Amino acid sequence: MEEDAVEKASIVVFSGDMDKVFGAFIIANGAAAFDMKVTMFFTFWGLKALQKGNLTGKSPMGRMLGLMNRGGADRIGPSRFNFGGIGRWMFKKMMNRRKVMPLPAMIKQARELGVRFVACEMSMNVMEIRREDLIDGVELGGVATFIAEASESKFSLFI
Amino acid sequence: MEEDAVEKASIVVFSGDMDKVFGAFIIANGAAAFDMKVTMFFTFWGLKALQKGNLTGKSPMGRMLGLMNRGGADRIGPSRFNFGGIGRWMFKKMMNRRKVMPLPAMIKQARELGVRFVACEMSMNVMEIRREDLIDGVELGGVATFIAEASESKFSLFI
Amino acid sequence: MEEDAVEKASIVVFSGDMDKVFGAFIIANGAAAFDMKVTMFFTFWGLKALQKGNLTGKSPMGRMLGLMNRGGADRIGPSRFNFGGIGRWMFKKMMNRRKVMPLPAMIKQARELGVRFVACEMSMNVMEIRREDLIDGVELGGVATFIAEASESKFSLFI
Repeated sequence: MEEDAVEKASIVVFSGDMDKVFGAFIIANGAAAFDMKVTMFFTFWGLKALQKGNLTGKSPMGRMLGLMNRGGADRIGPSRFNFGGIGRWMFKKMMNRRKVMPLPAMIKQARELGVRFVACEMSMNVMEIRREDLIDGVELGGVATFIAEASESKFSLFI
Repeated sequence: MEEDAVEKASIVVFSGDMDKVFGAFIIANGAAAFDMKVTMFFTFWGLKALQKGNLTGKSPMGRMLGLMNRGGADRIGPSRFNFGGIGRWMFKKMMNRRKVMPLPAMIKQARELGVRFVACEMSMNVMEIRREDLIDGVELGGVATFIAEASESKFSLFI
Repeated sequence: MEEDAVEKASIVVFSGDMDKVFGAFIIANGAAAFDMKVTMFFTFWGLKALQKGNLTGKSPMGRMLGLMNRGGADRIGPSRFNFGGIGRWMFKKMMNRRKVMPLPAMIKQARELGVRFVACEMSMNVMEIRREDLIDGVELGGVATFIAEASESKFSLFI
């Protein structure tokens, strides 16, 4: 098979909501399981899914944002009905009951399937998130990386 | 015309907000009117658009979710300014005044135009929504169905 | 180079949140910088990014919506942590510190790069936004314009 015969898919993860990030990984891992070469671009709130979960930010504003918007795949809540964490707990429980893989396991599976993680460097700068605040195996990149991949992709999504 | 010459479009309906669901159907019906073969994948909150509107859920958590998140094309509210239903009423009124087709009619039109509705089985399991809670003419499917369609689509959207 | 050899990209801007609109322009301008022909479709809340910022609406409901949902690239707030404008101010400050171009400059750049702006006429009718409430250089169009462009695009996004 020629190099350019590999089918690609690109996903921008803009949202940091647990349910949307979860949907992004379901699609990414599904496509990777079909032998597609998947690239996920994490930008703005989406970076939360790649954060280790430590507090971030150095300037007063950055620290405030880091505190209000603490990242970590296990900590982010759903876009609806979070109610200060009750929703997150409820969804996890409901998903677990139905044997749905939790988000941290989905992320691990994505990496094992060869899904490429690119973190948006500009967002990291603005939100004062450093390389060491992110999990391992993440590349830093910019919009050019996305354009290049999306132009060659069978489908591209903004989530 | 050969089979593979038919142009396809794929739309993931993740949101359950009236305005976004409405946007999804505008695009789906528009594409179908141009003879494209359109598949809509309803997942997570998007399932609400396909629900009949009865209360759902069996476990205490499922019932609570069903109560807070009651579905039905005529019942869902906009992503902004809903204010417990006033926004929904206002938008319907403003749309009606401009002769914009209401959502239930849009859904009916989509089916008449041959748009394919696929409901995400995993989401249904997690949210305790049963086949009989959905309107007629909906297929059950998973991420594989989406990947297959999206890979052959002229455009794919996540709404 | 033949006409059809030009690569296209299509972006639906449905959201009126500052952060999402900003993301849309980052991608649009990035693609245009790579010589892609980019079309942005502004619909529903996304119209706010193209509004001059004056109050809109003629009917009582239209005026109320115009008041609650006042547009203008410099006025819209982020999807999270807006807190009545503090979030907007904070994000602008954080972006400015990192030398990130503010939204009005991004829009100007998009136009200079030849990005095509299409405003959804149906949304304008429903929301009672007139042509003269929008900035210059915007075409009016409908879903057919989007379908035509998206069908020929290397990637299409719904933001």
